[in-house]
Amino acid sequence: MPTVAAYAATSATEPLVPITIERRETGPTDVLIAICYAGICHSDIHTVRGEWGAITYPQVVGHEIAGEVIEIGSEVTKFAVGDRVGVGCMVNSCRECENCQAGMENYCLNVCTQTYGSVDRDGTITQGGYATHVVVDQDFVLDIPESLPYDAVAPLLCAGITTYSPLAHWNAGPGKKVAVVGMGGLGHMAVKIAAAMGAEVTVLSQTLSKHEDGLRFGASHYYATSDPATFAELANTFDLIINTVSAPLKLDAYLGLLRLDGTMVNVGAPPEPLPIQVFTLFNNRRSFAGSTIGSIAETQEMLDFCAEHGIVPETEMISAEQINDAYERVLSSDVRYRFVIDVATI
Amino acid sequence: MPTVAAYAATSATEPLVPITIERRETGPTDVLIAICYAGICHSDIHTVRGEWGAITYPQVVGHEIAGEVIEIGSEVTKFAVGDRVGVGCMVNSCRECENCQAGMENYCLNVCTQTYGSVDRDGTITQGGYATHVVVDQDFVLDIPESLPYDAVAPLLCAGITTYSPLAHWNAGPGKKVAVVGMGGLGHMAVKIAAAMGAEVTVLSQTLSKHEDGLRFGASHYYATSDPATFAELANTFDLIINTVSAPLKLDAYLGLLRLDGTMVNVGAPPEPLPIQVFTLFNNRRSFAGSTIGSIAETQEMLDFCAEHGIVPETEMISAEQINDAYERVLSSDVRYRFVIDVATI
Repeated sequence: MPTVAAYAATSATEPLVPITIERRETGPTDVLIAICYAGICHSDIHTVRGEWGAITYPQVVGHEIAGEVIEIGSEVTKFAVGDRVGVGCMVNSCRECENCQAGMENYCLNVCTQTYGSVDRDGTITQGGYATHVVVDQDFVLDIPESLPYDAVAPLLCAGITTYSPLAHWNAGPGKKVAVVGMGGLGHMAVKIAAAMGAEVTVLSQTLSKHEDGLRFGASHYYATSDPATFAELANTFDLIINTVSAPLKLDAYLGLLRLDGTMVNVGAPPEPLPIQVFTLFNNRRSFAGSTIGSIAETQEMLDFCAEHGIVPETEMISAEQINDAYERVLSSDVRYRFVIDVATI
Repeated sequence: MPTVAAYAATSATEPLVPITIERRETGPTDVLIAICYAGICHSDIHTVRGEWGAITYPQVVGHEIAGEVIEIGSEVTKFAVGDRVGVGCMVNSCRECENCQAGMENYCLNVCTQTYGSVDRDGTITQGGYATHVVVDQDFVLDIPESLPYDAVAPLLCAGITTYSPLAHWNAGPGKKVAVVGMGGLGHMAVKIAAAMGAEVTVLSQTLSKHEDGLRFGASHYYATSDPATFAELANTFDLIINTVSAPLKLDAYLGLLRLDGTMVNVGAPPEPLPIQVFTLFNNRRSFAGSTIGSIAETQEMLDFCAEHGIVPETEMISAEQINDAYERVLSSDVRYRFVIDVATI
């Protein structure tokens, strides 16, 4: 099996280190990708530190991958050597359950195979994108449109699709008022995408420190959630709230901002249960929902939408040896807005 | 002002007693209704006992009213003397907010005037349907179709519309799997209406004691929620769950029964906040929502639907002096399925 260079966590408490890992041989329906860029997602940090459950070490993370096809299997029809491609949060699914059959493999009832930390079909643990190469079934590989800048596109594969999917599903568009809670890696993409869809966008952030950025990304309004007046002023306002924050929020305060038939969708993943007051949902017939990444077809649609509208993540390029520092900066919200690893430095 | 006979609560702890109350003069847009039948809703009990907040006594409750028009105001165009009419949970709204303007006065942003216990436009506290007469603005009066039996129709005005509205809004119909949680006054109407809409209906009740009734009302399946196997067997099954239970349920267990894009709608009103696990909503992109009664237009639509499909509540007729006993029987779930007061006995 081919051996490739990577950066891996070897325990929940130690820094990531250079390592070599094995990739499977390129099978008949596989694509071998030389990775050029890999985004750093907060999920990577939760995972390697065991905050979402115990994992097997060493573990390579990274599920925002941009690279070039350098080899294809004998039955591959969708890609050719030299294609610019992306890989996101999943690399396989059961393909048989009703959700997979409906083309919604991100909701696979047998749990889709995630890009890292999942049991792969050969029984190994999947290893992610902080590596020089990856082998992925062609059905889980995305085509990166020519007009998207190669060095900044990677975050679309998680932060982009995670926000695009609920915005599209819940009909963000002209005449709709959309609030985005949190303006980090996911939130800044939600603002750009919702604005491009034609919605009137409001950012709800803890402070006004990123106010100018918010307006530059397409928001019309920007409020500080640390100010209680915000919640009184914006009561019964929004058709859709995309909550990108994983910290536990006071749900009822945010739900109170929804107008008739409005929906608040969590893409942030607080691990603890949150209290919800049913009477808050009675008013305005409100809904509280969850959404997780998007299907492969929808991810391609998102990439094409971003190409058409010139939507590019805001990124800071780092070398592999800066990964551990970058993790600390993510945790202290010192990133505008996504770190991307230059994989040539691994 | 006209004085009419009624049954009222005079404190949170004493039985309801006969009393006389004043009704306003029939104004230009008002209809004077001689009440024939009034249903007993669990909300009546919560209200008179102060369980939903302190109230002013004496208080007449009852918001499932069927009666006959005996006088109309000078500007009334919608009704004539002799018409069979109904009144439900609300008798007015602000008519100016965006929800009222959209014809959704049950979600009035200035809070609709409820049939009892609300401050009316003349500053008095509204008094409900356990009374011989009521005066209501024509815009909040419903036409009762001829084919609906007069002595059983009253519960449609609350139990009927409260379940019809979410079933219609969330598209219960052919090809959809609908679960109804709880088979009391609301639940038995939900089963009948959902089945008439063409959905495949499952009842989720604590025990199997009403199993035969459930199938007779149109359900295809009936499960006991006291059996943990129910939750394993029905995982990822329903497009829509209507929860009529006001006791606090384990939300995540019920949400786990929703298939892709399924919604669980609470029409039951637990007073305490319920914990909800966001990860449960991530699976299958589930939603949790609330719904409260329905608009006047939708209530008329429901009455017409019930007439067309021969849907009649299951009722037990009682005299006024049996009201206090009936309350105890409601609290011990000893009712199949709604008590209706014969107002001639008041």
